[in-house]
Amino acid sequence: MAEPGSVVELIRRKRDGGELTASEIDWLIEAYTRDDAPDYQMAAFLMAVVWRGLSDDETLALTLAMARSGAQLRLRERFGRVADKHSTGGVGDKMTLVIAPVVATCGLPVAKMAGRGLGHTGGTIDKLESIPGMRTELSAAEFVALVERHGMALAAQSGELAPADGKLYALRDVTATVESIPLIAASAMSKKLAVGSSDLLLDVKVGRGAFMRTEDDARKLAELMVHIGRDAGIRTTATLTAMEQPLGAAVGNALEVKEAAATLRGQGRADVMRLCLHESALLLRSAGLVGTLAEGEARARAVIESGAALEKLAEVVAAQGGDAAAIHDWKLLPQARVIRVTKAPRAGWVASWAADEVGAVAMALGAGRARKGDAIAPEVGLWLLAMAGERIEHGEPLAEIYARSEDEAERAERRLLAALTWSDAPVAASPLTLGEIV
Amino acid sequence: MAEPGSVVELIRRKRDGGELTASEIDWLIEAYTRDDAPDYQMAAFLMAVVWRGLSDDETLALTLAMARSGAQLRLRERFGRVADKHSTGGVGDKMTLVIAPVVATCGLPVAKMAGRGLGHTGGTIDKLESIPGMRTELSAAEFVALVERHGMALAAQSGELAPADGKLYALRDVTATVESIPLIAASAMSKKLAVGSSDLLLDVKVGRGAFMRTEDDARKLAELMVHIGRDAGIRTTATLTAMEQPLGAAVGNALEVKEAAATLRGQGRADVMRLCLHESALLLRSAGLVGTLAEGEARARAVIESGAALEKLAEVVAAQGGDAAAIHDWKLLPQARVIRVTKAPRAGWVASWAADEVGAVAMALGAGRARKGDAIAPEVGLWLLAMAGERIEHGEPLAEIYARSEDEAERAERRLLAALTWSDAPVAASPLTLGEIV
Repeated sequence: MAEPGSVVELIRRKRDGGELTASEIDWLIEAYTRDDAPDYQMAAFLMAVVWRGLSDDETLALTLAMARSGAQLRLRERFGRVADKHSTGGVGDKMTLVIAPVVATCGLPVAKMAGRGLGHTGGTIDKLESIPGMRTELSAAEFVALVERHGMALAAQSGELAPADGKLYALRDVTATVESIPLIAASAMSKKLAVGSSDLLLDVKVGRGAFMRTEDDARKLAELMVHIGRDAGIRTTATLTAMEQPLGAAVGNALEVKEAAATLRGQGRADVMRLCLHESALLLRSAGLVGTLAEGEARARAVIESGAALEKLAEVVAAQGGDAAAIHDWKLLPQARVIRVTKAPRAGWVASWAADEVGAVAMALGAGRARKGDAIAPEVGLWLLAMAGERIEHGEPLAEIYARSEDEAERAERRLLAALTWSDAPVAASPLTLGEIV
Repeated sequence: MAEPGSVVELIRRKRDGGELTASEIDWLIEAYTRDDAPDYQMAAFLMAVVWRGLSDDETLALTLAMARSGAQLRLRERFGRVADKHSTGGVGDKMTLVIAPVVATCGLPVAKMAGRGLGHTGGTIDKLESIPGMRTELSAAEFVALVERHGMALAAQSGELAPADGKLYALRDVTATVESIPLIAASAMSKKLAVGSSDLLLDVKVGRGAFMRTEDDARKLAELMVHIGRDAGIRTTATLTAMEQPLGAAVGNALEVKEAAATLRGQGRADVMRLCLHESALLLRSAGLVGTLAEGEARARAVIESGAALEKLAEVVAAQGGDAAAIHDWKLLPQARVIRVTKAPRAGWVASWAADEVGAVAMALGAGRARKGDAIAPEVGLWLLAMAGERIEHGEPLAEIYARSEDEAERAERRLLAALTWSDAPVAASPLTLGEIV
């Protein structure tokens, strides 16, 4: 049993703006993981951290302590080069489904554990699970074996890795202590450190559809995560990308799989393709497979054009028990009972879709979950047919709404139209990428 | 079960510096009292309160919610006039044992529930329990019956009253959330509101031996408690009193009973007597028994000089099962095995005794408790023979140390001498009272 007085002393020091040593943080996290330090003490500590922050040293110590709290896969010791990716999450963010097979096909193995989502749509894992038969709950051994055999694995975050983070995250969720840049960085990075890749790409989203609302906060978070990753021996690159508007056309689980496959077929939106090539190139350059971003983008484009990247996704889906044919034929994915085509109520240019509102519409349709364990409807969501900067005429199709009922579709349509800002004059689409920390 | 999401929303609002409504605070405290809101959520909320504070309205709502969480004695409806007293606590503070019988003898019934102490010495209850046979764990009904029959009762804080405060206080103690002026005010006043006296005297101690270190903080706390008391219909007066140095000669449990009885016999220190007369007069004037403080002090002095106040204390001790003879003959109180007389190592004037250090010496002798439930030694402590402003010659007795062993006495003496600041020139003793909020 942890000396309760000692925990109080650590809480008090943080409350008063002081700093904890690495060994004090280790001790606290070990005690908490063993259930020796109770939730109520940790909750008070977390709120004191939200208040006072953590120094870079404290954040690093917390990340390492959580990474060491369970199994550590040490993948770079097994594979030499192996890539990992993390996105802070946004509306319509299906980039992992695109980038992982591209990078893997280029010869850089990808070992990605992902979370289930809370909010507008599911996470990467929920999207993958819309593919019939797809298994994402893999043991650590299966995960490693898939990377070995196929150069790629996409698995649900294993409870064997960084269990302290799992426990802490659940507590933060019910104590309003999620919103802290050092805690967010430590949580994300502890899982990445436990996997132990050689190269890591962090996609930090910024804007009204993202957790970080300002570029300043996003940059702080990105720099902190890069600092932690590099300190732990992972070549870490971060990119800041815009999340004022949804990313791509699809918002929903099966719909995003469809858009990811379309992108890999070279039939996706140009902006999604550009981001895919850019992020793939960042990883390839990080791992030393190419010397420049231009070279990396050319390699990525080549494996898309050859169809090899799409085949890689199908291969990995099959290896994880999924119906690989669904990658080629989206009719094999879950289909919505109601598809409503929303017509443009006027002519003009799309100035913007408010990402948070679009996310809320998808959530209301059943694409996301409000609480852990809620069921999600894989087949519902939105497909936006005109994006920012694009001209549309009165009465032309503006969006498709995939719903469980006419009623839900009608409510979604009203709300979706309210999320759209029109312009009478041409507007330029704002850039997707805002900068890198390399 | 409280909707967990709703608790998170209240925590989040306080974390972000917002204000809760009275009905939200009621709901939260009710849920917590019923064990529907878990400790970990309340711990996060408390730390957010330490950070952001509470408005006066929120503090009042919290106090009322805690007061309503258990039995309410409504003593002023039963007795018309009935007095209560609260001290924020200091080293050597035995004033309740003096003031309660004085005021009761003057015709104003006193109904006082007190806590057990943590720290340097026990609380009022521990001091009383050094009297052989004395029972302080009374039911609410016994407590009321004693006030009815004897015009006075001194009981341990009943768990029937303000149970939400008891639960919250225990949580604050282990989560470093004690240090918040609104939470301190709400905790103390919730118990006072549940008793429901007509008149309440608050003695807010300020200085290095008190919880409030600065006059500014002490005044804030006093004003807030007065505001709460008056809002709840109690005539409330606060006095700020100095706690840079111990109050009176005795620090310890039986020793403080001895000093209280000496004061009631008119044989105590003049400064303790002055404070006793002053505080008694504040209560008598509050209740309308006298028109001025001078008149009140005269009434208080008269019942001391007549011996009636001392008899009242003996009567109440007997009514609560205690040996009343011990009030007259302190040899009937627990006696220390070792009494060491510390001689002045030099001549000079006593400039000050550092109250916190003197308290720590008493604590080390066994007079206090570090944790709830620790046993205390009623017989040990200190009797200071020269106080600030007094002249003493080399080799004259400076203090008496009451200890369980020669070893402990010797260690105490070394530390006690280090707590004393000498002056080569006459120094004026600083005043005990710093101001009133009336």
